[in-house]
Amino acid sequence: MELWFTEKYSPNSGITIKVKQELAHVKSKYQEMSVIDTYEFGKIMVLDGFIMFTDKDEFIYHEMITHVPLFSHENPENVLLIGGGDGGAVREVLKHNSVRSVELVEIDKMVVDASKEFFPQVSVGFSDKRFKLHIEDGIKFVKESKDKYDVVIVDSTDPIGPAVGLYQRDFYKNIYDILNDDGILVVQGESPYYTDTKKAFVNLNRELKAVFPFTRPYFAFIPTYPSGMWSLAYARKDGKEIKGPIRKKDFDTKYYNEEIHKASFAHPEFVKELLK
Amino acid sequence: MELWFTEKYSPNSGITIKVKQELAHVKSKYQEMSVIDTYEFGKIMVLDGFIMFTDKDEFIYHEMITHVPLFSHENPENVLLIGGGDGGAVREVLKHNSVRSVELVEIDKMVVDASKEFFPQVSVGFSDKRFKLHIEDGIKFVKESKDKYDVVIVDSTDPIGPAVGLYQRDFYKNIYDILNDDGILVVQGESPYYTDTKKAFVNLNRELKAVFPFTRPYFAFIPTYPSGMWSLAYARKDGKEIKGPIRKKDFDTKYYNEEIHKASFAHPEFVKELLK
Repeated sequence: MELWFTEKYSPNSGITIKVKQELAHVKSKYQEMSVIDTYEFGKIMVLDGFIMFTDKDEFIYHEMITHVPLFSHENPENVLLIGGGDGGAVREVLKHNSVRSVELVEIDKMVVDASKEFFPQVSVGFSDKRFKLHIEDGIKFVKESKDKYDVVIVDSTDPIGPAVGLYQRDFYKNIYDILNDDGILVVQGESPYYTDTKKAFVNLNRELKAVFPFTRPYFAFIPTYPSGMWSLAYARKDGKEIKGPIRKKDFDTKYYNEEIHKASFAHPEFVKELLK
Repeated sequence: MELWFTEKYSPNSGITIKVKQELAHVKSKYQEMSVIDTYEFGKIMVLDGFIMFTDKDEFIYHEMITHVPLFSHENPENVLLIGGGDGGAVREVLKHNSVRSVELVEIDKMVVDASKEFFPQVSVGFSDKRFKLHIEDGIKFVKESKDKYDVVIVDSTDPIGPAVGLYQRDFYKNIYDILNDDGILVVQGESPYYTDTKKAFVNLNRELKAVFPFTRPYFAFIPTYPSGMWSLAYARKDGKEIKGPIRKKDFDTKYYNEEIHKASFAHPEFVKELLK
């Protein structure tokens, strides 16, 4: 039997991937998760039918969602991650020697457990002394937190189901409040290409702009996300228009570098139109 | 009946697209062509099973393969295109007022005819007075040509079948010879992501480097090409390391702009490794 997994990018298109075997299929009260082993991409975590990450290219997303904000900050010490219970972003944040504390707020313990079991190279940071896990609703957490952070990263799923509130203005206001004065927020930013992700891309950038004095999406090639043209939204509390690194990288990466950091902020003409 | 077209990106993955109807299916002595009408991407030209371009995103490829070399040249007057019988690159080249002549060498008249019939907005430049069509083998043409060009663009299919010779050193040497001293070559450059295209990407950049004193691939997001991370290879006869525009854009585009031009030359770390 040939087993193929297809993720629809729109009602009439998608990516299709030959599966060796399904390693896990579980439901939590928030979502449905599969872990599949594939020939082309290695293991893949799938939530509610959408690819979260693959062994083959998770490095791109996880490097770009972390190193861009962290290298845009003079001295990031305290980092908060909302979502991203797989730990890929944690692993990258911990590469920065300035970082003293990484807190991860994940609503769904199932994601953390699956990552530990099936993706040890992604969840490797969970055993670090600087790491602290909160199994909790991120929206509630940022509303109630009394701590301050240098960088907040929202590593969320698409704006459906449990993640809807992670795309709303009140949530961004609460993050603004828990950031230090020179703090930076980065949000998983969707794609400007297909209808649904385009709507999400436009909305979230509009909402962010209503709260932060400087915001700008940046882009990375992520082959296993719809269209491969994926964005991350960057927002600075101090309003400084910093679109490049201000510190030098002193560890290995496979995608990120200073040149890519700067280049990722360039916007094609059709993107400029969407953001007007 | 639901009709779906699937293009394999590797033996175990691909893109799948719902088809309204197949508008044409013809064979020439070089290749097999289908024109399909789809819900998501509009009409698509498919050669030997591979998407050449779609109504929805052809602007990205055609703008990036033309405006990068043309805006990197002080005064491009004579432009030669090898392949690209659809005319999309011709349309973009003709937007430059400095251009006096655009010659297109296409081996397969079938492609030109299909573009005129099904893609009038792509082939629109064919009626321009500055345009000249040669139905001829591009390899032979560049070997025998006595003319000189400011910019040569190789807008070829993948390195299989009729296009194999378009990825070989002798071909690039012959192009070197017909370029003016400050001439620029750009070649459709494949993707560094999937195994087959990665091999082609590495090989063609190595071959180009053996002939031209300055070469560098640049990148664009092309959602309907494998991985969405597509490259174009840029080579300068004068050896100048120019990686940005040297003239101002004075017409409308939907993807290309000066910022994108510069940014497209940034290489992720794994690409640098491949090019070592």
